[in-house]
Amino acid sequence: TNPRSGSSQAAAADGLPKAQKVMVIGGDGYCGWATALHLSNKGYEVAIVDSLVRRLFDHQLGLDSLTPIASIHNRIRRWKSLTGKTIELHIGDICDFEFLEEAFRSFQPDAAVHFGEQRSAPYSMIDRSRAIFTQHNNVIGTLNVLFAIKEFQQDCHLVKLGTMGEYGTPNIDIEEGYITITHNGRTDTLPYPKQASSFYHLSKVHDSHNIAFTCKAWGIRATDLNQGVVYGVRTEETEMHEELQNRLDYDAVFGTALNRFCVQAAVGHPLTVYGKGGQTRGYLDIRDTVQCVELAIANPGRPGEFRVFNQFTEQFSVNELASLVTNAGKKVGLDVKTTSVPNPRVEAEEHYYNAKHTKLIELGLQPHLLSDSLLDSLLNFAVKYKDRVDTKQIMPSVSWKSIGSKPKTLTS
Amino acid sequence: TNPRSGSSQAAAADGLPKAQKVMVIGGDGYCGWATALHLSNKGYEVAIVDSLVRRLFDHQLGLDSLTPIASIHNRIRRWKSLTGKTIELHIGDICDFEFLEEAFRSFQPDAAVHFGEQRSAPYSMIDRSRAIFTQHNNVIGTLNVLFAIKEFQQDCHLVKLGTMGEYGTPNIDIEEGYITITHNGRTDTLPYPKQASSFYHLSKVHDSHNIAFTCKAWGIRATDLNQGVVYGVRTEETEMHEELQNRLDYDAVFGTALNRFCVQAAVGHPLTVYGKGGQTRGYLDIRDTVQCVELAIANPGRPGEFRVFNQFTEQFSVNELASLVTNAGKKVGLDVKTTSVPNPRVEAEEHYYNAKHTKLIELGLQPHLLSDSLLDSLLNFAVKYKDRVDTKQIMPSVSWKSIGSKPKTLTS
Ligand SMILES: NC(=O)c1ccc[n+]([C@@H]2O[C@H](COP(=O)([O-])OP(=O)(O)OC[C@H]3O[C@@H](n4cnc5c(N)ncnc54)[C@H](O)[C@@H]3O)[C@@H](O)[C@H]2O)c1
Ligand SMILES: NC(=O)c1ccc[n+]([C@@H]2O[C@H](COP(=O)([O-])OP(=O)(O)OC[C@H]3O[C@@H](n4cnc5c(N)ncnc54)[C@H](O)[C@@H]3O)[C@@H](O)[C@H]2O)c1
Repeated sequence: TNPRSGSSQAAAADGLPKAQKVMVIGGDGYCGWATALHLSNKGYEVAIVDSLVRRLFDHQLGLDSLTPIASIHNRIRRWKSLTGKTIELHIGDICDFEFLEEAFRSFQPDAAVHFGEQRSAPYSMIDRSRAIFTQHNNVIGTLNVLFAIKEFQQDCHLVKLGTMGEYGTPNIDIEEGYITITHNGRTDTLPYPKQASSFYHLSKVHDSHNIAFTCKAWGIRATDLNQGVVYGVRTEETEMHEELQNRLDYDAVFGTALNRFCVQAAVGHPLTVYGKGGQTRGYLDIRDTVQCVELAIANPGRPGEFRVFNQFTEQFSVNELASLVTNAGKKVGLDVKTTSVPNPRVEAEEHYYNAKHTKLIELGLQPHLLSDSLLDSLLNFAVKYKDRVDTKQIMPSVSWKSIGSKPKTLTS
Repeated sequence: TNPRSGSSQAAAADGLPKAQKVMVIGGDGYCGWATALHLSNKGYEVAIVDSLVRRLFDHQLGLDSLTPIASIHNRIRRWKSLTGKTIELHIGDICDFEFLEEAFRSFQPDAAVHFGEQRSAPYSMIDRSRAIFTQHNNVIGTLNVLFAIKEFQQDCHLVKLGTMGEYGTPNIDIEEGYITITHNGRTDTLPYPKQASSFYHLSKVHDSHNIAFTCKAWGIRATDLNQGVVYGVRTEETEMHEELQNRLDYDAVFGTALNRFCVQAAVGHPLTVYGKGGQTRGYLDIRDTVQCVELAIANPGRPGEFRVFNQFTEQFSVNELASLVTNAGKKVGLDVKTTSVPNPRVEAEEHYYNAKHTKLIELGLQPHLLSDSLLDSLLNFAVKYKDRVDTKQIMPSVSWKSIGSKPKTLTS
């Protein structure tokens, strides 16, 4: 029904189809790299903007991806040699507006997908300076992107990665961005109330408010993708060659629930359930991340419109994930145990959770639901690389309550 | 009923009454100076923390207070010579944590009243660098105050100045901080949705979310005072001597509605009504600002509690204010005209507005409602200083829509 859906081509002035240009900010990261390749494969013209600061965090904290990952330069060279497709690369920090201006002026994107933030809740809770870095990096970076669009590329569609964690765990259904409230006999549709629970999640709430304002004041068109927890590592494109392989984080700072459990199972570490394990969240396969972003780009909103989509496909509690991984482990011959870890976070461990996620389905999302075959493949993947696992990085070391104001030096 | 209400005394370990220590961050500013003197007068032990950056803004933009104001050093000396009371002074930027740590460790406040932010909406909309300065200064400054409380003064009550502008102009009644929502058959009380409409107002929304989180995660006790537009200049203490006089801003960047109208009337400038003039907001007399802050301090919440009070006493539309000032002008012999100025802001010019403000009344606030005598006195005050008015600063020069990314040099 939507003429632009599923196609990266739009008619140019000369009548010939012209590829849409997409800037992928944070394109060296987990979601960004998979998305950049996917969009390039689908015929979009892609430019990656990344400061590579994520690789620096790993060095500084002594962490590493389960999978060996090539440098961004080699990744892009390999993609070119395999497919003939060029991905432009702009290395720099989006908090540096001069750099960002240059990237916008030279590439002139039709859409900017913004993954480029510090995205770990535990990282943001290590110490004061990392809390402040997270909010500064994310909020100022996003403000700069908004100014760049306003000044240099007014019609550019901003596709911004938010998180389902912005909503917290209210005792009512979570809607997609807005809620219609009838109060004292009057009705309005207002931004859904936010209750974030780390300095990282809060930075996303700040971004959402800033973006909503600029849509209204400047006529920017933006789509906020409130993404759930992403799992998996393979996508059609990253599978094509070892040098295209994506990162997979399993450590307690950057690793996320299901990915962590699979690696834990592979190395024989008991699954680390925090607290009671009733924490329920939305999850999605990384193959759906790339699909959702493409759908958002292919179906932009109107100028001035601030759209919010909840980007996940299924809800699970931590206990449910643990038992899924335990069963899948059995099938591939792993004896998986579970251990209850004192919760390092401040969060409800048993709560109501029912979040809507129909808007991306309406645009055509075909979900890859969590299946035995995905768990098999992820477990086998983890087994393949298990010698690379540093088991000291598995237990949580960052506590929400004991974060201090002094820089935490991370020598062992 | 509340044992601490109306008194700054609490029993110390030795049984003797011990004055409560209040840190007034931003104590050289309009609200902060009046509050610091009021609290000192009432027997609180007061320390002012201020970077004096507000005086720098004036220099840089070529603006000045209607009233001549003494240096902070002379203000404090004069207060001491008049009353015998000492106000401590810590000059520095709260974004500098080392400085803030030192101030907290040496003064050990029982309460910290936080006025110390860049508080002009137009200032935040001048150019990209001032937009970013505003969000950085306000958000990081507040994060530092939260860390300082957590680390050095766990029991310190944070009294934080927010703004009624955080709520925007929803089509339903505005509650005090929270709203109870029944949705699909379930009910929860959630943070009231925020719709701020400048980078300044947004910075306050960010602060509110950050503070709410730290109350929950760290057990901080905080009161967010969502203040309306303040008018007036005299308070019991600032009237005592010329050197104690408060600032009064009338320019288009820092001046606020009613104060501006009185100065405009005094110099024979037509009252500058932006757009249709139906913009309705909450207002309060500066004598009520100091009273409300004292009430909040005297009645602290529980550890972990995040209280939100709407701090204003009456609602007016811009058109209503214009006609009140016109009539009051007539009585003191001024022929007051009104002019409609194209609205430099992006905001609704006609809208529903009904905001609750009962919580401070319940604590004992005795409002100074806007009266003829206040308007008389404010008009006469403005007439007294009218030779100091730079009429070029009256018309708005900052536009919400045409803010750019380049630094705006402000040479004439
Ligand atoms: N991974 C998940 O489960 C998940 C879930 C919900 C939302 N998200 C969001 O999706 C986005 C991508 O997440 P990810 O897992 O791929 O993270 P990631 O850390 O793997 O990638 C983020 C990339 O952004 C870059 N970056 C950070 N700050 C930058 C700056 N100032 N300038 C330029 N580049 C910068 C980093 O170098 C990194 O390559 C994030 O915004 C994250 O909040 C991720
Ligand atoms: N004036 C109003 O009508 C009004 C209305 C609603 C809310 N408020 C809020 O009340 C507070 C005080 O407002 P005001 O009118 O007195 O403003 P003001 O500008 O007169 O005073 C603010 C003071 O804070 C100081 N300051 C700013 N940033 C600082 C930093 N990083 N470190 C140390 N000091 C810093 C400034 O030097 C200044 O003295 C503000 O937070 C404002 O948002 C004011």
